[in-house]
Amino acid sequence: MINPLVIPELRELLREQDKDTLTEVMADLHPASVAEFSEGLSVEETWQLLNYAPIERQAEIFSFYSLGKQVEMVSGIGRERMSQLLEIMSPDDRVDLLKRLDPEVVESLMPLVAKAERQDIRHLLSYPEGSAGSVMTTEYATVPAEMTASEAIEYLRQVAPYRETIYYVYVIDEDRHLIGFVSLRDLILARASALVREIMHRDVVSVRVSEDREEAARLLARYDFLAIPVTDEQNRLVGIITHDDVIDVMQAEATEDALLMAGVSSIEENYLEADFTTVWRRRAIWLSALFVAELFTFTALASFEDAIQAVVALALFVPLCISTGGNSGSQAATLVTRALALGHVRPRDFLRVLRHELLMGLALGVTLGLIAFVRAVLTPHSVLGNADRWMLALVVSQAVAVICLWGTLVGSLLPLLFKRLGFDPGYASSPFVATFVDVTGIVIYFSIAKLYLL
Amino acid sequence: MINPLVIPELRELLREQDKDTLTEVMADLHPASVAEFSEGLSVEETWQLLNYAPIERQAEIFSFYSLGKQVEMVSGIGRERMSQLLEIMSPDDRVDLLKRLDPEVVESLMPLVAKAERQDIRHLLSYPEGSAGSVMTTEYATVPAEMTASEAIEYLRQVAPYRETIYYVYVIDEDRHLIGFVSLRDLILARASALVREIMHRDVVSVRVSEDREEAARLLARYDFLAIPVTDEQNRLVGIITHDDVIDVMQAEATEDALLMAGVSSIEENYLEADFTTVWRRRAIWLSALFVAELFTFTALASFEDAIQAVVALALFVPLCISTGGNSGSQAATLVTRALALGHVRPRDFLRVLRHELLMGLALGVTLGLIAFVRAVLTPHSVLGNADRWMLALVVSQAVAVICLWGTLVGSLLPLLFKRLGFDPGYASSPFVATFVDVTGIVIYFSIAKLYLL
Repeated sequence: MINPLVIPELRELLREQDKDTLTEVMADLHPASVAEFSEGLSVEETWQLLNYAPIERQAEIFSFYSLGKQVEMVSGIGRERMSQLLEIMSPDDRVDLLKRLDPEVVESLMPLVAKAERQDIRHLLSYPEGSAGSVMTTEYATVPAEMTASEAIEYLRQVAPYRETIYYVYVIDEDRHLIGFVSLRDLILARASALVREIMHRDVVSVRVSEDREEAARLLARYDFLAIPVTDEQNRLVGIITHDDVIDVMQAEATEDALLMAGVSSIEENYLEADFTTVWRRRAIWLSALFVAELFTFTALASFEDAIQAVVALALFVPLCISTGGNSGSQAATLVTRALALGHVRPRDFLRVLRHELLMGLALGVTLGLIAFVRAVLTPHSVLGNADRWMLALVVSQAVAVICLWGTLVGSLLPLLFKRLGFDPGYASSPFVATFVDVTGIVIYFSIAKLYLL
Repeated sequence: MINPLVIPELRELLREQDKDTLTEVMADLHPASVAEFSEGLSVEETWQLLNYAPIERQAEIFSFYSLGKQVEMVSGIGRERMSQLLEIMSPDDRVDLLKRLDPEVVESLMPLVAKAERQDIRHLLSYPEGSAGSVMTTEYATVPAEMTASEAIEYLRQVAPYRETIYYVYVIDEDRHLIGFVSLRDLILARASALVREIMHRDVVSVRVSEDREEAARLLARYDFLAIPVTDEQNRLVGIITHDDVIDVMQAEATEDALLMAGVSSIEENYLEADFTTVWRRRAIWLSALFVAELFTFTALASFEDAIQAVVALALFVPLCISTGGNSGSQAATLVTRALALGHVRPRDFLRVLRHELLMGLALGVTLGLIAFVRAVLTPHSVLGNADRWMLALVVSQAVAVICLWGTLVGSLLPLLFKRLGFDPGYASSPFVATFVDVTGIVIYFSIAKLYLL
């Protein structure tokens, strides 16, 4: 890899207007590398730098900047330049950018863009966020079934500059229905006179334009494809999703899931540069909601206040009981969510999972109960107060065992239930479910305590 | 997509030895589809079914079975057949399989495999798990720099059947040093007489064979490549990692992270079919370790037993305080871990993050503290005992605020620290860190209580 430039060097070259060096750098380096080392330049400097590359390459480099930088570059001196780039950028990249721009800016850009591109943009912008349509590109290659392999290769050679990929070519009939696909490898391996019809794969895996983008990612990953075609309700080809977009989708979805669980899903800006009050408001809303939910632990404990009054030592084991439910629950939830993702378990296996986790929860509960028993028996005399050592140990160990069983059952069955209801099974690992297990754990613990001690 | 067969239909076809239908099915469907619908067959039936396809296709279909099924199929009648398939399977897939087999089985298979393949297998098996070398394939295409574009295309046509991809071709010198690459698209677009040297990209992004496979995935995703070359310490080309393997790596790493956090990382078998005692042991070890760690909450509470004796109402707010630390900590940890992954924050930004989260933790703490104050003031008289309503509210709200600040700081700074020390920043979200925040939360709460109430 060529050693990338550092910002001061780059600024020096720009100031000196060193055309030879800059043109060479822009031509030789991968567009992603250029974007990476120039990300730190100001908007004006970046536009200056891009001047040293032909317009097609400018569009490529521009697509590799972070979306935040892209948005910045459109403002100010960028508007006029941008409309040129928009015509050349690949349809999915430009729609990603336009979605992030102020609607007024988009409207001011649109008249500057050629009519065909404008229609394509409006069309792609109309697909809902998260759908296959929202991540597809319309720059795919198609051939008729009656073309020969050598004609098809010659055709691909001509259209290559305007297509996202020429490695997969889709075969459509006169109504644009998808009837097959061939790879460039197939075309190259075939005899020159072979018809596309003879060599094409008829078992085409595709997604509907309205389907979840995750389904497109799952299928592409499953079949090791380079691209997956997207069709409308009439099975007409409307776009393709390429392997690199699937990787982006996978990263975006993984991040989305993690952030959702931590209640920061709507913070999209650069962490250190985002507006403080906005971030505070978003984080505070989530933490406050969880805090209010967790207030039920207070209510639950208050209703057992008589038991705590009678045997204060009981209160000391509350955090232990709560965490037992949380840990056993999250373990079971993770295992079942993963088994669902791998297809080892389906929602209709509910009873099998129930039986399995009932036994497992009991076995785990007994294990933890034994540890709890030993620890409770060793409670120092000073702390014990008027409580009987053995009785306390019996209560705590039984409570730990039952709560472990309960957490395991809730954690393992909720993902199946969520999946059944059409939600993401991952919600079973959400902190709200954890709060529910916390509260019920307290109730279980003190109910057992009341049986023995009061 | 052709409607896939169901298992009973398939069994019927196998019993009737319906050669025409089965041959057609095996030829027309994508290998991944065949693997998907026949995954449920017995080992013997699966081998019968594979008989209806040519050996190259058998190897493809076989690679799409789950690793568990692949391992099963090697035992029993499979051994002899397997050695044939091993020679044809792609090097990375076969090494994945061999790693999962009993070493004795591997040794018994090896003499049946041709010598060249045997050496390749031994070589790939020698790379450590998780390295770029462990996921690469050795079936890549290379051309010398002095070839013309048309000669290169003709050469690719000949070697295509034995190469994982012909869309990226690597250019090496006489010592196998990597000096450039061309895509098939470049070759097709170039004039027939152009030399590879003239059209190749010299800015080749590659990974070292010993580097983490995640680094290979990151680079391929960053540059939208179809494949990334792998080199040894002398920059000699030794393999490539293709886009589909990168997707597999990304899925595997995501799963690994999730399971690690839930302490079930070593359960690789099919969830419902794994051995009960083995799974119990693995799950119990993790839960017991967490339970023992969480016992410190008991110790911490016991040391404040005098405070609880004096004001029993204090005990009722313990779970609330604990969960405040947990939720604020996991929120901050997720945000910072993500910012690290996106490159928005680096370990050396420690002081900036500290200042940012100090302010944010205070702002969030005040928010939650206010809610806590309102709730504590409304404590029912029956529960309050001898405690002063306003004093209790003051204690609880202050404790909640301080614990929120503490959780936020721990959650935001630990990922930076872990990254700095070379660990996965994700460990900051581990339940052991949560337990640490639990215990310190109790100490903070009662320390504040003692200041005011005793």
